[in-house]
Amino acid sequence: MDIASVIGLIAAFGLILVAILIAPGSSLAAFIDAPSILVVCGGAVAACMMAFPLKTVLGSPMALKVVFLNKPTDVTALIKEIVSLAETARRDGLLALEGRIAEISNAFIVLGIQMAVDGARPDVIEDLLRTEIDAVATRHRDVKAFYDQMGRFAPAYGMIGTLLGLIIMLGNMSDPSSIGSGMAVALLTTLYGAIVSNCVFLPFAEKLSFLNKQELLVMEIIVRGIMAIQSGENPRVIEQKLRTFLPPAARKKADEEK
Amino acid sequence: MDIASVIGLIAAFGLILVAILIAPGSSLAAFIDAPSILVVCGGAVAACMMAFPLKTVLGSPMALKVVFLNKPTDVTALIKEIVSLAETARRDGLLALEGRIAEISNAFIVLGIQMAVDGARPDVIEDLLRTEIDAVATRHRDVKAFYDQMGRFAPAYGMIGTLLGLIIMLGNMSDPSSIGSGMAVALLTTLYGAIVSNCVFLPFAEKLSFLNKQELLVMEIIVRGIMAIQSGENPRVIEQKLRTFLPPAARKKADEEK
Amino acid sequence: MDIASVIGLIAAFGLILVAILIAPGSSLAAFIDAPSILVVCGGAVAACMMAFPLKTVLGSPMALKVVFLNKPTDVTALIKEIVSLAETARRDGLLALEGRIAEISNAFIVLGIQMAVDGARPDVIEDLLRTEIDAVATRHRDVKAFYDQMGRFAPAYGMIGTLLGLIIMLGNMSDPSSIGSGMAVALLTTLYGAIVSNCVFLPFAEKLSFLNKQELLVMEIIVRGIMAIQSGENPRVIEQKLRTFLPPAARKKADEEK
Amino acid sequence: MDIASVIGLIAAFGLILVAILIAPGSSLAAFIDAPSILVVCGGAVAACMMAFPLKTVLGSPMALKVVFLNKPTDVTALIKEIVSLAETARRDGLLALEGRIAEISNAFIVLGIQMAVDGARPDVIEDLLRTEIDAVATRHRDVKAFYDQMGRFAPAYGMIGTLLGLIIMLGNMSDPSSIGSGMAVALLTTLYGAIVSNCVFLPFAEKLSFLNKQELLVMEIIVRGIMAIQSGENPRVIEQKLRTFLPPAARKKADEEK
Amino acid sequence: MDIASVIGLIAAFGLILVAILIAPGSSLAAFIDAPSILVVCGGAVAACMMAFPLKTVLGSPMALKVVFLNKPTDVTALIKEIVSLAETARRDGLLALEGRIAEISNAFIVLGIQMAVDGARPDVIEDLLRTEIDAVATRHRDVKAFYDQMGRFAPAYGMIGTLLGLIIMLGNMSDPSSIGSGMAVALLTTLYGAIVSNCVFLPFAEKLSFLNKQELLVMEIIVRGIMAIQSGENPRVIEQKLRTFLPPAARKKADEEK
Repeated sequence: MDIASVIGLIAAFGLILVAILIAPGSSLAAFIDAPSILVVCGGAVAACMMAFPLKTVLGSPMALKVVFLNKPTDVTALIKEIVSLAETARRDGLLALEGRIAEISNAFIVLGIQMAVDGARPDVIEDLLRTEIDAVATRHRDVKAFYDQMGRFAPAYGMIGTLLGLIIMLGNMSDPSSIGSGMAVALLTTLYGAIVSNCVFLPFAEKLSFLNKQELLVMEIIVRGIMAIQSGENPRVIEQKLRTFLPPAARKKADEEK
Repeated sequence: MDIASVIGLIAAFGLILVAILIAPGSSLAAFIDAPSILVVCGGAVAACMMAFPLKTVLGSPMALKVVFLNKPTDVTALIKEIVSLAETARRDGLLALEGRIAEISNAFIVLGIQMAVDGARPDVIEDLLRTEIDAVATRHRDVKAFYDQMGRFAPAYGMIGTLLGLIIMLGNMSDPSSIGSGMAVALLTTLYGAIVSNCVFLPFAEKLSFLNKQELLVMEIIVRGIMAIQSGENPRVIEQKLRTFLPPAARKKADEEK
Repeated sequence: MDIASVIGLIAAFGLILVAILIAPGSSLAAFIDAPSILVVCGGAVAACMMAFPLKTVLGSPMALKVVFLNKPTDVTALIKEIVSLAETARRDGLLALEGRIAEISNAFIVLGIQMAVDGARPDVIEDLLRTEIDAVATRHRDVKAFYDQMGRFAPAYGMIGTLLGLIIMLGNMSDPSSIGSGMAVALLTTLYGAIVSNCVFLPFAEKLSFLNKQELLVMEIIVRGIMAIQSGENPRVIEQKLRTFLPPAARKKADEEK
Repeated sequence: MDIASVIGLIAAFGLILVAILIAPGSSLAAFIDAPSILVVCGGAVAACMMAFPLKTVLGSPMALKVVFLNKPTDVTALIKEIVSLAETARRDGLLALEGRIAEISNAFIVLGIQMAVDGARPDVIEDLLRTEIDAVATRHRDVKAFYDQMGRFAPAYGMIGTLLGLIIMLGNMSDPSSIGSGMAVALLTTLYGAIVSNCVFLPFAEKLSFLNKQELLVMEIIVRGIMAIQSGENPRVIEQKLRTFLPPAARKKADEEK
Repeated sequence: MDIASVIGLIAAFGLILVAILIAPGSSLAAFIDAPSILVVCGGAVAACMMAFPLKTVLGSPMALKVVFLNKPTDVTALIKEIVSLAETARRDGLLALEGRIAEISNAFIVLGIQMAVDGARPDVIEDLLRTEIDAVATRHRDVKAFYDQMGRFAPAYGMIGTLLGLIIMLGNMSDPSSIGSGMAVALLTTLYGAIVSNCVFLPFAEKLSFLNKQELLVMEIIVRGIMAIQSGENPRVIEQKLRTFLPPAARKKADEEK
């Protein structure tokens, strides 16, 4: 679980809630207005439906799972696994890898090993694996773009809502005592837009971008590993090469474990 | 039909309409002002006429057809078609493709096959197909730029309209009771600018950009396929190469259909 | 003549004028204030004099001629002309081109043909033509940057003018009845800045950018043509190569004319 | 110590403090409001926790140490050290470098020399050193991104706080005399957001970016030096090559010291 | 002297001064407030001290000398000088250039010729000259970045000052007659920020960027010339090559002078 995302989300909304509750003369009820919520959230979703293909819109909530439940890949273990596969291939031939596919933890490694076992040509294997990486990168980029656009449209619809409220209020100024409350309601949509954008979508878009970079790095390591296995390189050399991707601290730790 | 675009457009305008109708003391009539609409929409169109060549301006409404009526290309079927053409070419020679041109679904494939049949040199074929891709990409980019600029000029002319209204109102403050309604009218153009921009042009510019990327990918697959057919490659190898462009799910499905 | 630029400019200012004239209680006189015009336009020009070399500033009005009087180059005719020159060179030798220089329509073709006739080395010819393209691109980019900056400085000086007006007005609040008119005058500079920027400079900067791309494409075609002529290629092959630059519609039309 | 950072920070806060203290009718107490500070600073931190991995968030205060305590690397001395190592390697062989590792000042040089002594292959050494550079660049970029985002979220939460305050105030307008102080408090969060952003995070993000570029240059020099030592180049040639990285003034000074 | 920079600066401040003086009921004194100037200018400088290394901050005023005193390099004369050096080298050998170093106008040419005379290897000469170009480009870019950031921080501190003023004013509303003048003073810092940014730093940042591009072009010509001299190329060929950098008008003029 991504503790930082959880704590951040709770803290952001918690701070706003506390600020409302401790302010003298304030009540939470004054900050809740269903039509305003509808204009801001509904409007932003509607704009994103126009902007993105239906598949991206429907798949976007799944990204929340990623934001909250991601855990960093153990690159050291990953390299160990690839080296172990390389040893099998070196000792018993590429076909011997078929028997080990069931125990492989990562679907992307399985994809590559399966093709190597099936005797696909190296350039086809690499093409396919890289197309797969591109597809993952594109899908991630689309989801990040969705969160970015939600973070941009929410304040825009917040402003539209406030303009609606102001125009209605200004057209009914016969009762001056209602001006204050009219304007308070009008400002609610701007507030909602700012909160939705800065407490959810913009920060999560950043995190998705970070997680994407991390996953692409892992996939890059796997491609290099599989191509090396396929060409029958020495497992020790493969290990040495793949471990250049490790940060120095992890490299040192891996050395000591040996 | 692109359901998401249709639902999004209806939802965006529907939400704003509902927000106006359910607000106490509000009437739709107060939100309709012909001169304000003219300043915002007319102004944005005028600015775009200065900014773009006439052809792009006149062609821009056609982009709406694309936004609403696009349907994703069936890449699996496309690859099948190219492989089938490759089999004919391999079996009966390039010239035999002439008899199959009538049944080809995609004009871009026809263009390439026709040139191959006419015996054009491979580099001329590839140059021509790639120039065609560039031309499509440029035309799409110009249309997207038009929508982006409309989305930028509409709020700008909305602000110009509001400034006009404010200056007129401030110059006639002898009757203070009219200030409210004067300001309400002045704000209308800002509202129109925000709505036109965020409920139509900015979201559609995004979708056009997405559809463009999709079409360019399809054209890329076709170019690779035609160049491979022209050089007489084995249909099975062509299929294997082109299928690296398929996302893994579609690839698996295509395998099963075999 | 570029009809779109002319209509756009007239429409943008016409709409604003009509909006002022039909508004009840408004007069055009209230919107004209010489010092405000001076601060916005003079300020923007002054800032651009600091930002650009004198030559760019003085040459910038010439760009208006381009914006209004440009007409698209007839690429089909251009290719015909190059192919005809290639035929002469192929039949009678490079030196025979000297007799045809007088009839060439485009100064850039003349430059290239003259060098070829003078026996300059191919790499020197290409270097010189490409340096010329770079020089044109740089000059265009500088002019576009000037229009962009005018479009950015005009609203900035509009804001400076409004701040000046507000501070003067706030310092003289002894007569409250003058507040309205004082603020109206203060807002004039913001209005001017927005109009100057959105009705002239920003749209024209866009059009200049488009015209630049178009001219560079024409120059690219000419360079390729001249290098091919110089190396004595077959005129038919030159035609085939250059026609890959034509959009498909123009290509089909050119085929039919044959 | 980075005097400029220290003076800048003190001056920025000092100027604001002085401006508050010398203003007639003002008191520092009116500018301190714990809940407002909490919303702005807490909110920005919460948003950054959602946006960045926990490690980056926790490590970000360490960047302050870098901002305040950095001192420019003495590139002349660094080159001297590398050349001296090259002389040892040339005279007594690569293995003789082992005895000198203890006296090397820079951990990155040690890393490279150690690998060379251990007999690693040149491409593995270079890969590892460059991966290390990439890792440092990525870590720096993440930290800079953190400061940039803090500089962006702080004003956003400032605006959220002001909207909260305005809505509460507008809902309690029964006592008009409290409007002024209500609005003063509401504006405090906007002020905090602007100060936090412009007096701390945005300037420091810039400086981090500058220090990063400087460190990467030093690492680049070291990689070139180590690869040259490993391949047994002449120490004089190594010196001449590495000194092209020196600015001319430093180069002249180094010449004179000889 | 750069007339445009001087006239622009005088015109920008002159226009603002005139606008203040001719406005009825206005006085220059109302626009001068020492603490406000301190907050805006001092604040922007303080932020830039945090953002840049001390050397860049202290060197930034020197850039004003460049902005006002620059004069365009005479590229035609520069090429003549290089060709004349090439003739000497061709006739009397590289060493003969030593006698001519004293008469060379440009320090960068001296640097290159000195190395050639000293017998440095061509790749070391080119490396060193290009490192020198990079160093100049980096120094220029840092100075431009400083001016850009001053142009960004000045309005930011202007806003901070205005918020300070507003909060003080709103907290002392017991005397309503002072509201106007209080707000006038509060707005002064925003005005200062806008003026400092748009009348000095942003325009000068643009001009510095232009001058940088110009100087880099001159250095590029010199590097090409010196490398050609060093390799003993024919002076006529060198001239022909370098003259491709001249704009066509200057090229024609140079031809006629022959």
